[in-house]
Order: sequence, then structure tokens, then C-alpha cells
Amino acid sequence: MKFVIIGGDAAGMSAASRAKRSVPEMEVIVLEKSEDVSYSACGMPYNIADADRDIDDLVVRTAGVFRNKQGIDLFTGCCAEAIDVKNGAVTGTIDNRESFRFFYDRLLIATGGRPIIPDLPGFDHPGVVALKSLADGRRIKNYIKDNDVKKAVIIGMGYVGLEMAEALRARSIEVEMVKPGPDLLPWMPRELAAEVRRELDANQARLHLGCEIKGIDKTADHLHIVCNDRILAADMVLVAIGIEPNSQLAADAGIETGVGSAIAVNHKLQTSNEAVYAAGDCADAYHVVTGQKTWIPLALRANRAGWAVADNVCGKETSLEGVAGTAVFKVFNLEVARTGLSLEESRRCGFEPVDVTINSRSRAHAHPGAQPIWVNLIGDRRTGRLLGTQMVGREGVAHRINAAAVALQAQMSVKAFSETDLAYAPPFGPVWDPLLTAANQLLKKMT
Amino acid sequence: MKFVIIGGDAAGMSAASRAKRSVPEMEVIVLEKSEDVSYSACGMPYNIADADRDIDDLVVRTAGVFRNKQGIDLFTGCCAEAIDVKNGAVTGTIDNRESFRFFYDRLLIATGGRPIIPDLPGFDHPGVVALKSLADGRRIKNYIKDNDVKKAVIIGMGYVGLEMAEALRARSIEVEMVKPGPDLLPWMPRELAAEVRRELDANQARLHLGCEIKGIDKTADHLHIVCNDRILAADMVLVAIGIEPNSQLAADAGIETGVGSAIAVNHKLQTSNEAVYAAGDCADAYHVVTGQKTWIPLALRANRAGWAVADNVCGKETSLEGVAGTAVFKVFNLEVARTGLSLEESRRCGFEPVDVTINSRSRAHAHPGAQPIWVNLIGDRRTGRLLGTQMVGREGVAHRINAAAVALQAQMSVKAFSETDLAYAPPFGPVWDPLLTAANQLLKKMT
Repeated sequence: MKFVIIGGDAAGMSAASRAKRSVPEMEVIVLEKSEDVSYSACGMPYNIADADRDIDDLVVRTAGVFRNKQGIDLFTGCCAEAIDVKNGAVTGTIDNRESFRFFYDRLLIATGGRPIIPDLPGFDHPGVVALKSLADGRRIKNYIKDNDVKKAVIIGMGYVGLEMAEALRARSIEVEMVKPGPDLLPWMPRELAAEVRRELDANQARLHLGCEIKGIDKTADHLHIVCNDRILAADMVLVAIGIEPNSQLAADAGIETGVGSAIAVNHKLQTSNEAVYAAGDCADAYHVVTGQKTWIPLALRANRAGWAVADNVCGKETSLEGVAGTAVFKVFNLEVARTGLSLEESRRCGFEPVDVTINSRSRAHAHPGAQPIWVNLIGDRRTGRLLGTQMVGREGVAHRINAAAVALQAQMSVKAFSETDLAYAPPFGPVWDPLLTAANQLLKKMT
Repeated sequence: MKFVIIGGDAAGMSAASRAKRSVPEMEVIVLEKSEDVSYSACGMPYNIADADRDIDDLVVRTAGVFRNKQGIDLFTGCCAEAIDVKNGAVTGTIDNRESFRFFYDRLLIATGGRPIIPDLPGFDHPGVVALKSLADGRRIKNYIKDNDVKKAVIIGMGYVGLEMAEALRARSIEVEMVKPGPDLLPWMPRELAAEVRRELDANQARLHLGCEIKGIDKTADHLHIVCNDRILAADMVLVAIGIEPNSQLAADAGIETGVGSAIAVNHKLQTSNEAVYAAGDCADAYHVVTGQKTWIPLALRANRAGWAVADNVCGKETSLEGVAGTAVFKVFNLEVARTGLSLEESRRCGFEPVDVTINSRSRAHAHPGAQPIWVNLIGDRRTGRLLGTQMVGREGVAHRINAAAVALQAQMSVKAFSETDLAYAPPFGPVWDPLLTAANQLLKKMT
């Protein structure tokens, strides 16, 4: 059995390692276009925040370990260019020179995603950067050092943009953030987004909302981000407006793509071609709340899907439940988390959503150091089901969201969730956990 | 409708407030034997830790507010002595002088629990204290101040004992802890208990395990706690060996008691007499894992059961799901949490338990400040169900436990739990949450 994997990041290397562990005699071949495999991509903003830390600290396992200790045929600098599904082969070039062809019995496409770069003038300047791969992180760190960056503009206000705002402020770099839309975190209720806004303001990250970007001009000293109504000057521009799946290779081979142009996979992670699997940021998934396809590129899913593919390839049939879209990020000293659907998504998916937003505390009555916690909870009036939740606070948010994530996975009703037996001790929250208070109030609104 | 409530603590006052809010014309009478109602009992150790804080900071609502603003007929200093279920009446004495008789249409017994005090010589000394009521907290604070307590012995090593060890050490009081049993936290796997032990050692709380206590002697300067093999000297002795339900009043009235002598209630919180309800630390509950009766006195359940009784009394029929026994406590800088059954309890309840103990980290690979997190996870080999979990760590334990608590409520299998979509960001944990790593390893052991 020959198992070929295109892409040596989270999904690809998880699959390779697990397959080789399960069936040591299996030939496992990984084709990775960059030189880096197995690193903590999400850790990059925190590494960039510290000038003294080496970006390679983020490497979990080197290519050498995979090759020599695990016996995986890992080829870096190896760019897959075409999949021949009829003959079961992948062709491409190594180090931009030699061409290769690998035959496979089973193929995993784990090509990941890539940052969206607007097709506008000036975005090809070396001071205009994006953050996805370890090479990107390295480039940003070097650029900051070599050019003594004092001022940065971040285009986009998603979680990568926000994490990078914190990272750059930690290095005393002036930060301005700009986006065309009128709202910060538009999927959030306004009360929660206002908290995030306050935290950004307090940390001198200046926001420019509703600014359409026309292009970037290079002057002698600066990059000028030209917007419809203003010009922002910077030494470096970070483009963080989102990512898109690397699914073209699959599409060119006639493999079906779906939501957000991601590669369509079934619960076993098989594509429309049963010998070909897809996993990670390039593949879609079922949403546990809607049962419908969704594309939410997240690290845990990539790792888990990689394992599931390996199990299926090794003959241990495995189906994966869907995703709840659980995510958490830190914005300076604020924890921001979500799971499930937002109000708008709930409506779009045909639910009859009712939501409630409450403000509770991170510690018990009279316990010193309590901080506000905001919770937004959404239920479906028709079925009584819990649909989603979002939280913002200075402590106790990041892990609290998981209680709701598990409830979504279990398709719990708001009523059942309101009756869950959550932990209580004064240093960690009120007797009625903020999630329960929100559930109790939501129940009242729903009935 | 006349609704009489015996006991004005968490369950009693929750029921009174909710009933009066639902049906303002209802006559709601609360008979409380002490002078204190509605205070954060669990906050007492943290208040005692700070000599400058007034114990009354813990009062959430005063008797006056309940009387004047909420219109509840709240009688303090009012000790119920007998329930006449035939005639629907409660009799007793007010302020140890006048006797009273109140007729009821519906009665709630919310008499709570009381600390177990061993029937041994010397335990009646004023320097031998226990911590349950606000009066107890007040007494302890005053005793420490008036007697300039420098050295305390805590009998018992449950969570009240451990929280008080931290509180007393915060006031630079020498602390020794003693118990007859050989193990610290015997319901815990040894690796986790060892972590707690290390934290106690690091904070100079000295433990004496396996010491049978024979009595307390009073000398000129000290209290001497006389054990089988040693004598411990102290200025104050805290008895914290557990609580028992105040169910005698109910039992004397012919109302059924069950597990741990707690008052037996059905899912509607009704006792064996359908006009009489019981809630809070005096009442039992169904366990969500076993479906069997259990007695786990915890604050959230008391509040929730109080509300459910009010709803039932007000004609809004309400059944409560069971409890999972979710609890968290802080031991100095350690967070200790559990939910569901321990290994020993699982065996006793007829399951075929398999458990795994793992050591993970509180933050991602290469993220600064990561601390170890210990997780013990238990599943049932026969049904595949998740039975319980325990965690110990310096951060990220208190709320993490709730993900497992929700899973227990949903009767999830270990497999389903292992597939939940939990949040990930480097400052808050590894890609595979410690709970998921434990679930993955447990699955391997179970199959």
C-alpha cells in the first residue's frame, strides 16, 4: 500500500505519522512545497511579539525526525502540480528543477489554505506581508528587524489581524487597522464587539472602519495605504483579510469542491474520488448544528481529520462528527470565544433564533478581582435547541466556551443546557455560571 | 396559597424569591433559625484569609430586603421543631422564647447540612470551630483576632479543610492537617493527589495522615489534639471532616430519608409527602451517570432546586435532571476539579471502568508560561460511556471541567466526547485539549 500525502502541515503530518504508526510497512510519502513541516502556526503572533525568540522555536518536529525516526518518505521543496486520478499519480517539481511522478493507492490532499491578497496596485511590495506559513512568520520578523519598523498598518480585523495587533504593540510598533466593512467583528453582538473595541483603544491600536482600500503607494520613506477617504502611512503592511482553501489542484483533477471552494469530503474524509481524501484547511466539513456543509479552517479539525484519514487508509473505518466552529482568541488582555452559529448565521440556516446577551462576573459575589464576562446565547424557538454562543471577558472565557461546544455536539436543548451541573467555587465564577445565567434568561425569552 | 419554607439559606431563599416573583399574591413564609440569610457561604475561606475584610461583605441580600422589597414573610431566629403533616403545620420557637405554629398548603424543607463533630472529649472547647454558617465564619474571624491565633490544626482534608489551610496560611498562621485515613483525597488517582500534596508542602501546610484522633486536651497555653501516635498543639482547631444533612425534622414527621440520611425527593423535589418538598444540602438527588440516588451537597444544586420547588408550588410543573457532582476548589495556586464518578465509585455502581491519567500542558507548544495539567478520565468498557473526570493544574482546570460535566449530562460516549470541537489558541492550551488527549488515550485502552 502506497499512501501519498500532498502537504506536510497539520493534517498531512498527522495523517502520515498515524498511518506509519498503525501500519509500519506502509509506504508513506509526503510532498511538501516549503521547507517547514510540523510547527505551531497559531503560535506565530506570540513568537513575533518577542524579538528575542527564534521563530524556529515553533517547530514541533523537524523533517529529519519524520524521515529518520518515523520512516516517512518526506520530500520538502516538492510542489505537486497535477493529480492524475485515472492512473493514481501525482506529478510536480522538486526544488523548481526536477520533475517527479508518484503513484498512489490512496492519496490525501492536505494543501491547506492561503491568505487572500487583494488584486490591487502595490500589494507586491516586500513590505506588504501576510501570515500563514512559518516562512511568512520568518519574513515578518526579519522585515521588522531589518527595516526597523516603527509603524504598521493591518488590513483586516479578524483574529489573525487582532492577534498581530497585540504582537506588534508588544514590540512598541504603532498599529493602525483598516477594513472596508463598517463593523468590528460583524458576527458578534454589538455589546461584545464594543468590549473588544475598548480593549483595542486602550492599547492604542487605532481602527479605521468603513475604509475602502484602493492600493498601496511606495514613497521614499513609507508605504502609503490609499483608502477612499484617507491615506495611512506605514513601514510595514500586514494583509489579514482571511484565507481561502488551496483547492485548485483538486478541482483541476475533477474532484468536487463546495462551500467556499473547499474540497468536498464525506464523513470519512473521502472526496468525490474514493481513493482520494482531503483534510485540513483545504477541505470542508459538516456543521454539527446545521448538519450542512461548512468551511471553517481550524487547527484541531486539521489534526483530527488527518488522523481519521490515516485510520481509513489503514483499514480502520472511521467517520468524523462535524465541527461546531469553536474558536478562541486573545486580544491584548481580553479573551474572545465563540462556538456554533451566530444570530445571522442561524437565520440564514433557516432557524428561528432567539438570543440573549448578559453581563456577569468572572468570580463570585464579594470575591476580589472579579471581571465582567459578556455572554451571548442563541436558541431556536421552534425546536428549543441551543444554536451557538459567544463570550468576551478578561478571564474565564477561553475554556468556558467548551461547555457550550460539547452541548452543541450533543444537540442539547437550551433547557437541558440550563440544567447542566457546572463547577462552582468563588475564585472561578458565580454560583450560577455566566453560561447558565444566559441559558436561564434565554429560556424565558423562548417560551 | 400559603407556602412555608424552613431554612433561609440558598435553597430556601431562592425558592421564596422565585415564588413571590411568579405569584406576588402568594403568602411566602420563611423560618430561619439564625439571623443570616442569603450570603456566599463558599466565599468564607477567602474572606477569613483577609483580616481587614468584614465577614458581612459576603451578605448578598439582607433580611430587610427580602421583607420590605420582596414582600416575603421572613422570620429569623425562628427554629422549626416539628412538622405536623396531617394538619399541614410547622411548630417551633422564636428567639428561644415564644412558640409558633404556621399552617401551610405547601412546605419546603431547606434545612441544609451541619458539620460533623466527632463525639470525643474536648470538642466542645470554644477554640474548636467548624465552618458552615456565616455565624461560624464570624466566630472564626473573631477567635483568630481575639486570641492572636498563631497555630491551627485542621481535622479533615476535604475541600473546606484545604481551602481553610490556604486561608490561614495567608494570615501567616502555622497549619497542620490531620486525618485518620492513609490517603489525601482518596477519591483521586495517586498522581493527581501527589500534585496537591506537593502544593500543600510548598506552602508549609503540614499533613498528618493515618492519625486516629482520641480527643482534645486544653492546657494553659494550647489545645492539644491527641492522636494515637502523636500530640499536635494549636491555638485553634478547625473540624472539617464533612457535613451531614439536617433531616431529623423531616424524619420525625415520617418523611422518607435515603442515601446518607438525606431527605428523599423525586425529580420534582417532592418528598414522600406530596405537599412537602425538600431542596438544598438536606435533600438527595439523582446522579446523571448512574440514574441512582446520591447525596452531593453543592451550592448550585441548592439554588436550582429552590427555583424548581418554587415553580412546582406556583403550578409551573418542573422536573430537574440529576447532578453530576461537578466541583472545583483551589488549593493555594492549584485548581482541583472533578465531575461524575471516581474509579472506585464506578466500580461500586456496577460499571466496568477503564481509566487513564495523562499529563498535558496548559498552553501550546513553545508558548511561554505553560503549566502541567493532570487529567484522569474514566469510561465504561461495556457501554463506552464517559463516567467521570478529575483534573489538577495551575491554570485552565476550573472551567475545563465543565466540558466533561456537560458530556456526562448528555450521557456521551468517550468516543463522542473525543470528537468534540473544543477551542484552541496557544495561550489557552495545546491543539488537542488535555481532555481530548485523555479521551483519545482512554479510547485506545477501552477497545
